[in-house]
Parts: sequence; C-alpha cells; structure tokens
Amino acid sequence: MSTYYSVDALSRSTHAILVSMGFSNEHATTCTTVLLSAEKRGFATHGIARVGEYHRLWKAGRINTQPKLKIVRETPSTAVVDGDRTMGMVPAHFSMELAIEKAKSVGTGWVSTRNSSNFGIAGYYAMLALEHDMIGITMTNATPLVAPTFSAKAMLGTNPIAVAIPTLSHPPFVADFATAPINRGKFTMAAKKGKKLGFGFAQDSEGNPSDDPTILERGGAILPLGMDREHGSHKGYCLASIVDIFSAVFSGANYGPFVPPMVPYLNPLDQKVGEGVGHFFGAMRIDAFEEVLVFKQRMDHWWKTFKNAKPIEGKQVFIPGEIEFENEKRALIEGITLVPHVEKELRTLLDEQNIALVLEAI
Amino acid sequence: MSTYYSVDALSRSTHAILVSMGFSNEHATTCTTVLLSAEKRGFATHGIARVGEYHRLWKAGRINTQPKLKIVRETPSTAVVDGDRTMGMVPAHFSMELAIEKAKSVGTGWVSTRNSSNFGIAGYYAMLALEHDMIGITMTNATPLVAPTFSAKAMLGTNPIAVAIPTLSHPPFVADFATAPINRGKFTMAAKKGKKLGFGFAQDSEGNPSDDPTILERGGAILPLGMDREHGSHKGYCLASIVDIFSAVFSGANYGPFVPPMVPYLNPLDQKVGEGVGHFFGAMRIDAFEEVLVFKQRMDHWWKTFKNAKPIEGKQVFIPGEIEFENEKRALIEGITLVPHVEKELRTLLDEQNIALVLEAI
Repeated sequence: MSTYYSVDALSRSTHAILVSMGFSNEHATTCTTVLLSAEKRGFATHGIARVGEYHRLWKAGRINTQPKLKIVRETPSTAVVDGDRTMGMVPAHFSMELAIEKAKSVGTGWVSTRNSSNFGIAGYYAMLALEHDMIGITMTNATPLVAPTFSAKAMLGTNPIAVAIPTLSHPPFVADFATAPINRGKFTMAAKKGKKLGFGFAQDSEGNPSDDPTILERGGAILPLGMDREHGSHKGYCLASIVDIFSAVFSGANYGPFVPPMVPYLNPLDQKVGEGVGHFFGAMRIDAFEEVLVFKQRMDHWWKTFKNAKPIEGKQVFIPGEIEFENEKRALIEGITLVPHVEKELRTLLDEQNIALVLEAI
Repeated sequence: MSTYYSVDALSRSTHAILVSMGFSNEHATTCTTVLLSAEKRGFATHGIARVGEYHRLWKAGRINTQPKLKIVRETPSTAVVDGDRTMGMVPAHFSMELAIEKAKSVGTGWVSTRNSSNFGIAGYYAMLALEHDMIGITMTNATPLVAPTFSAKAMLGTNPIAVAIPTLSHPPFVADFATAPINRGKFTMAAKKGKKLGFGFAQDSEGNPSDDPTILERGGAILPLGMDREHGSHKGYCLASIVDIFSAVFSGANYGPFVPPMVPYLNPLDQKVGEGVGHFFGAMRIDAFEEVLVFKQRMDHWWKTFKNAKPIEGKQVFIPGEIEFENEKRALIEGITLVPHVEKELRTLLDEQNIALVLEAI
C-alpha cells in the first residue's frame, strides 16, 4: 500500500525547506506551488523529487536564494528578464506575470529570460494566463541530451513547449510536451527495472540506434521527436532549436550544447556563451482577436468535436490537458504518493535543515 | 534530359494566367512570387503545380479574384484579417505585412486570418520578417488528413509551422515543416511509382497501421509527427491542434474536420463552423529583445556550432533552411525543371486563357 500525503502537508514541508535555505516567504511559496502543481498533474519527476536536487545545487553554491530579478530591456509588448541565478520558478513566474501585464495593455506580451535554472513544469506558467482570459505559452531550453538529425552528439535539451487555451465548460486545453519522444526520466526508470528501452528513442555515441537505457551516461543521445529522418526527426530538431533560440539567443542565456547541466552531480561547463538557462513566455489576450464568450464557445465545440472523434477500438481520444486535469482533481481529494526514495529524502531534508515540522500521512 | 525554365519565364506565364482570371496586377504578382519561391526552394508540390488547381477552383466559383481584404479587429499588437475567399497568398501576404507594421510600433505583431484558402509555402511569409531584422512566424490549418492519437478518423490538417530567424553572415535559420511525418504528396508519389509507403506514416479507416499509399482515398489518415503514442504522436497531435486553434478559433475560420478541402475534385463540406481556411502570423523585432548586431553574432555562432557538430559517419548536420537556401541560389542560375504533367498543364492554361505568351525553355 502506498502512503498518501495531502497537498497541504507536502506544501508546508517543501516551503519550510526552501525558507530554511534562505528564500523569502514569497519566493518559497512560488517554488512550492510549481513543484506541487507537477505532483498534482501527474509529473512526479518534476515535483518533490527536485527539492533534493535544488538543495544540493544550493549547497554547491550554484543557486542564489536571495535573487534580485531585473528587467534588462523592454518594449510595450516585450521584455528580457535576468533571473539572478536562482531556482527557475522565481524568474519564470515573474516573467509570465510580466507577459500578462504587457498583454493587458497592448494585446500580447512576450518575455525572454536568462540567468535562470530548471523551472519545473512548463504548463504551470502557461496556465497562469487562463484566469485572465488569455492564451499562455511557455518554452525553456535545458541540459543538452538530444542529437539533431544526423548528429552523433547531443546538442539540444528536451526543450519543452506548453500552450494553455481557455474553454467555457470543459477543462482548458493544455499542451505541455518535450520536443523529444521521451525525457531522461524514462531512461532512469527502464535502467532501474533492468529493462531495455525499445528502439526509436536513443542512439549511442557514434549515432547508431540503441535500446540501452544507460546509453546517455556513455555519450549517447535522445532522438528528436519524429525518431529518424524518414519519420520527420528534422521537424523535432527544428522545434527544439526554435525553443533554444527564443529562450536563450533572445535573452543572452546559454544555448545549445552550452546550457549548464542542472543536476548537482555534473559540474558547470568550462565554456559559457551566456548566463544560465533561458526561458520564453507569451500571453495573448483572447479579446485581442475575438469576443471572449464567442472564442470560448468555439473552444468548447472544438473540444467536444475532438473528444467525440471515432476512436481506435479499445482506445479513446484525449484532449491535451484532459488527463492532467483529472489527475489534479483526484490529487486534491486522495492526496499524493511519493516513491520511497523521494519520501525518504524529503524527511532527511527536514531533519538536516532542523525543521520542527512533522510530515504526516493522510 | 529535363527542360529548364528561367524563374522569370515561369513567373511571366503564371502572372499572365492569374491576371486573365481577374486578379489585379498586384495580387497576381504576390501569388506568383510565393509560387515561384516554392519552386526555387525545392518544394515543387507547392509551386506551379498549384496553378491548375486554383484555376479549377476559380472555374467552380470557389475563388474570388477581386477580393476586398478587411481588418475586422485589432489592438496595438494584434489583428484579425478577413481574406474574402481569395487565393491564400493575397491575405497571407497582407497579414504578415500587418504583423510587421505592428511589431515596428510595439515590438511584436500577431495576426490571425480567416476566409482564406491554401497559401502555398509557409516559410515565404515568415521570411518577409528577415529584412526588417525581425523573426517571422507562420502557421496555417488545412484539409483534415491527420488522425489525433487513438482516433480512427482524420481530424486535422498537416498544419505547418514556419519560423525564420536572421543571422549575420550565414543563411538565415528557416524552419518550415508540416506537423505530420509526411504530406499528401508523398502518398501520391509512392502510389504513382507502385511502391509501398513503409510503416509509421499512415493508418486505415479503423486506425490499423497501413503502408498502402492509396489509403487516404479510402478513409485512412496520416499519423501525427511522432508516429505512435510510445514515440510521442500525442506531441504531434498537440502541435497540429495549436496551429488549428491559433489559425481558426482566433479568427473565425473553419477548424479541425470542418476545414474545407482545397482541391477542386472534392466538394465543399455541408457543415461550416467558420469562414474558409485560417492562418496565423507573427513578427518579433529583434531589438525588442537584444541589440540586432549582438543577436546576429550569437546566431552566427549558433549556426556554426550546430553545423560543426560531430556527424554520424557518412552524414552531415544541416541547419534548418540551409538546403533550401542552396536550392534557391541554384535555381536562379540553372533555372527550374517542371514534371511533365505540370509543364503540360501550364501550356494548356496559357492556351485556354488565350494568353499570347510563349513559354520558352532556357
């Protein structure tokens, strides 16, 4: 039997650890909210599991817990933000709010952010736009793990894209996906279970197809979305490149193979071409294009039309964000389970940081 | 031996046919430029081959050659354009120019366009932004041919995305790709040669994998980019959906399975949910984010870094747009070859429209 914790209990523990590391109450709340959003929506790899990683990065002096965020350039519809080397959630949240403010005044807002780090799930920030009757867009570059088509070397991250679009009476449309077929988590999981990966996911250090889940540790790379040239891997390579350029070449962050590894067991790279990790955020006001009600009615019709598409036998068609919406509802009622090593690490961190708070199961 | 025609000779013939159909000199020039851009860049399926299709659509009363374009809604950074049922190149060009104007004044410009039709290659419009030191973005929805993950029915077009990004001394970065592994042209070509498609491209009317190149004519569908759920087809489905919503739900065009077929041998659908086909255009001023020179120097470095990535043995890494850039240079020197039936059709059209113009080979 798994142990269930309430969202509230996990939030309090996470928040306390972050505050003990030196984060302000406000910044700790932002980071906690994003990490718990990942847990609720079913992306455990981007949730509580990351707290330990950030803690180790902080101990190694690679995370600034007292950041001073700066807007370094702006126009009525754009800005560039410097994240001052802190946990990515803080500048990401700030940047998305800024994009929303700009959209309020001129219809759309676009922000490119540098000197940041891993920001958790991309979808969280895109969804901030929804309550303002806006479409939200988020992208980020990441540690190079993906090989461009015909490259033997990893040059790009799994660079995710998230787009959130409001509806009237259905769950919002929320696409939140890496621009590679799978992320690093799938490799770790297969390796732990002693299983092969299957083909179409990875290549070895020479670029030969590989089904070995440990291949990334030996110079291998993840394939782009599309798998191989014949099936469109050059399109996945294009997408990951666009994310990289919008996130980092616009803002002055590191791009491509220069993106610093965001795990404590890998050292920062010798060569820098910018500052930290880069993100990109967009907000588009619905009523800059159409009456809000008309748009939402159309989206409801879009939602139902796709949901009612004739499915393949034994399957059903899902709308982007539908499964995560159901996960979130369930997590609020049933609570959240943690895998044993994450649960243990969370308790260790509470102890190590001398936090007088007991993490109780439901 | 293939016959080569100069870009100029093909342009004059195309322009004359369009003017004879009732287009103004200016609109005919726009359409001709886009069609020839496709030929030059190596996308023959989107070039002169389309002239006959438009001619037949026009004869069937489905193309308005005297359109009055309208801006139906706008903010400082956005607009919605109505294309008045003409050839897609006319409203697409107008909309992209409008996005560029808006970017000049507030940093970025975003335009959603309805009541349009097939606009040729998406990359053409994105590239219009380059000479203004802007990034250009183009999307369009299209005739439903692609099945969402787990759907037995085609619900989305091959909905392409194009992004053009300026550099200093290298060819510009130009990604221009359908959000499905292949387009309809590949099916036709395989069928003509009597060849199978291979797997990972199509499914039959029940959603079973199919390698039959005639399967689209019998209720089959193209798979999304990513091929199957395991390899990330839900990500391709997300992308095509985002293109559909930005292009059509914003603008009031037809979306999803309601997009009208843009070929003369298929009748318009009974049910409409909007007007014509929809597009989406974006322009972002480089200096809204960074000094133009600094940005372009970074892009040159990005370009070289990726070009010099260690290739798989016997292969080389290409930068998005690199091959098309070389094609374009070559076409201007060597001219363009047409496949025999397209060449014949062009001559027939000149004849049928009583155009006193001789199409001469180089």
